[in-house]
Amino acid sequence: MPRPVITLTTDFGPSSAYVAQMKGVVLGILDDARLIDVCHSVPPQQILAGGVILHDAFRHFPTGSIHVAVVDPGVGSRRKIVLAEIAGHYFVAPDNGLLSIVAGPSSATRVVYVERPEFWHHPVSPTFHGRDIMAPVAAHLARGVAFGRFGPAANGLQPASVPAAGVSAAGATLHVIQVDTFGNLVTNLQGDQLPPNCRAATIRVAEKQSLTASISKTYADAPEGQPVILVGSSGRVELAVVNGNAAQVFDATLGTAIDARWEESTSPFEGNGVAE
Amino acid sequence: MPRPVITLTTDFGPSSAYVAQMKGVVLGILDDARLIDVCHSVPPQQILAGGVILHDAFRHFPTGSIHVAVVDPGVGSRRKIVLAEIAGHYFVAPDNGLLSIVAGPSSATRVVYVERPEFWHHPVSPTFHGRDIMAPVAAHLARGVAFGRFGPAANGLQPASVPAAGVSAAGATLHVIQVDTFGNLVTNLQGDQLPPNCRAATIRVAEKQSLTASISKTYADAPEGQPVILVGSSGRVELAVVNGNAAQVFDATLGTAIDARWEESTSPFEGNGVAE
Amino acid sequence: MPRPVITLTTDFGPSSAYVAQMKGVVLGILDDARLIDVCHSVPPQQILAGGVILHDAFRHFPTGSIHVAVVDPGVGSRRKIVLAEIAGHYFVAPDNGLLSIVAGPSSATRVVYVERPEFWHHPVSPTFHGRDIMAPVAAHLARGVAFGRFGPAANGLQPASVPAAGVSAAGATLHVIQVDTFGNLVTNLQGDQLPPNCRAATIRVAEKQSLTASISKTYADAPEGQPVILVGSSGRVELAVVNGNAAQVFDATLGTAIDARWEESTSPFEGNGVAE
Repeated sequence: MPRPVITLTTDFGPSSAYVAQMKGVVLGILDDARLIDVCHSVPPQQILAGGVILHDAFRHFPTGSIHVAVVDPGVGSRRKIVLAEIAGHYFVAPDNGLLSIVAGPSSATRVVYVERPEFWHHPVSPTFHGRDIMAPVAAHLARGVAFGRFGPAANGLQPASVPAAGVSAAGATLHVIQVDTFGNLVTNLQGDQLPPNCRAATIRVAEKQSLTASISKTYADAPEGQPVILVGSSGRVELAVVNGNAAQVFDATLGTAIDARWEESTSPFEGNGVAE
Repeated sequence: MPRPVITLTTDFGPSSAYVAQMKGVVLGILDDARLIDVCHSVPPQQILAGGVILHDAFRHFPTGSIHVAVVDPGVGSRRKIVLAEIAGHYFVAPDNGLLSIVAGPSSATRVVYVERPEFWHHPVSPTFHGRDIMAPVAAHLARGVAFGRFGPAANGLQPASVPAAGVSAAGATLHVIQVDTFGNLVTNLQGDQLPPNCRAATIRVAEKQSLTASISKTYADAPEGQPVILVGSSGRVELAVVNGNAAQVFDATLGTAIDARWEESTSPFEGNGVAE
Repeated sequence: MPRPVITLTTDFGPSSAYVAQMKGVVLGILDDARLIDVCHSVPPQQILAGGVILHDAFRHFPTGSIHVAVVDPGVGSRRKIVLAEIAGHYFVAPDNGLLSIVAGPSSATRVVYVERPEFWHHPVSPTFHGRDIMAPVAAHLARGVAFGRFGPAANGLQPASVPAAGVSAAGATLHVIQVDTFGNLVTNLQGDQLPPNCRAATIRVAEKQSLTASISKTYADAPEGQPVILVGSSGRVELAVVNGNAAQVFDATLGTAIDARWEESTSPFEGNGVAE
């Protein structure tokens, strides 16, 4: 049986040598480790954004995978490091709310505080626990060291403050929780919270002018340059611009509020022969 | 015998979690998959640029490798997804012209439309076929599923509209088809189309002022700051600036036209003791 | 016993297809190669920066690892390519000073000039020796080809011109040798050159206005927005801004000079209840 996959998520930036140092430490402990990068472009120190990215990614990996997440503005302070089991996967991260976002409505099955230095890389730098504590703990777990040996049991994970979408029959107030490479604005509204059969909405981004967006299945369902609302590949409602960059068009970023009012009418593009 | 290598080329941006989701899906099907990133910095939705990058890269991998390419502006529309064999390698991509650029003057040996959902990752997101259709098809092919089982045979690949270089005895009109990290302008002219023994050319970039560029073997053959024409590492003619960034100097980008007139004279730097 | 790890460090930019071409060549020679990216964001042609990054990273990998470093402004000129053994690791790189920075005060145990074309990838492009000479040499070394077979012994490595920190009892003059993702300014002063028990310094960056920085253990030891001096995870003295970007705040980059005068006083934040 092969070793569990070890994935890495950080805010170190693409192609960072800090990530490579973590990999070197893992390989020094477990020479046949299977290492996969999830994302190193988490906006610096944005715990919420890092949690959303890992939440959406981890479930596509094999059960039993080990996920290391280093978004750690409090490194060296009294914040704890935890090892947690969530939905059959393992996670090593600072206990700063990130893993509560990963867990979502489900919760961690088991959590321990990572406190046993015999599983660390020494000397431990006070500014880089990702390399010296979290990476080696993941490697030892992948080698087969038992979950409970890394430290004492914790009662649970530090909660996260995630903004909730405000939903009513007439519409919703959404917040941008991720901006992807294409500028699509991923929000905190779940796809199944959209009213069924609704084909369009009046939207206002950051309290600017109102405009109409169609509610589509794909980016190809409306004319180029049109705003569309759709359910993205992780089940979240997104605001996109067809073949354009919604973040730029709407001058939106993490945390931007979007007000949406569902329209009774059918698609604004229906009947003019453009869509589909 | 080890599994074939699976490579990934996308326009998802460096360090994208979307790429990681694809890798997770592959590892869930084939736990000893060997995954290599070719490039995730294809300019968004630029099919030509993605095709050129993969064309130049795939031949350096072992025969039998499987290459997944996701530059897919039409995701969710009626465009097809194909599995193709080209020059002893396998490719999974939208049938949008990208693979015709990869194939170049040779053509695909075999092509099937990817239509058999038993080899997909379910539920299939209408906006992310890279993760839910192309990645699992590559994994199943690497596991040994026969080529013909993924769907019905196709007659060939969708052609691509690639601008051709205009070549005459006196000169050539080139187009920029790739801008590399150093700002070197890679063009659609092949190195063997350069006149032999010609040492310099008068060039105009985007119809701006004329200047003289030496035709060199390497970036080190002319004084710092000088424009040079050379045959790059993929056999294509490039316009570069010695220790500089040609894209910035010439304000050039994908598609920019370069007019070149071959000069009878010898190198402009010969005789002054600077070069070589 | 698994194959030695092969790491790659270049200035090709994140997610570069040139890196992928190197990996393809390695895999064609050694199908079970273990490839790890150290960093591809070395500032273009900055030999010093590349050397510092690899110096700080290589020691975290298992002994016997093979490190390929391609920062090669002189590609195609008469500069040599070397294979060197340093501190039990192997390195393949242009002989342009980079490996002298990697070696630091210790020196290479063995060095050969890479001159035997039977271990290269043909045809050799005059502009991409990383792919056609360095990558295949690393793969053949990992396969077990003896060190001495790659070419004739060299007397040593080309020295590098590294700026030295000027240190006195009253203070130090430092130079920025790396800017990390967070904008932290990594300098050429070693942590053990800081005066013990000193808690603050008066600093001037690039001869601008003086201000006081506390000397801290971690980024969390001072109030947000404050400049702090600390010993980073590689043992080098850094200038950082708590939860901020020092490179932006101080308009500093590679090579910027920082003047620091040690203060007799205790921490500027002590007694006001903010820190710790």
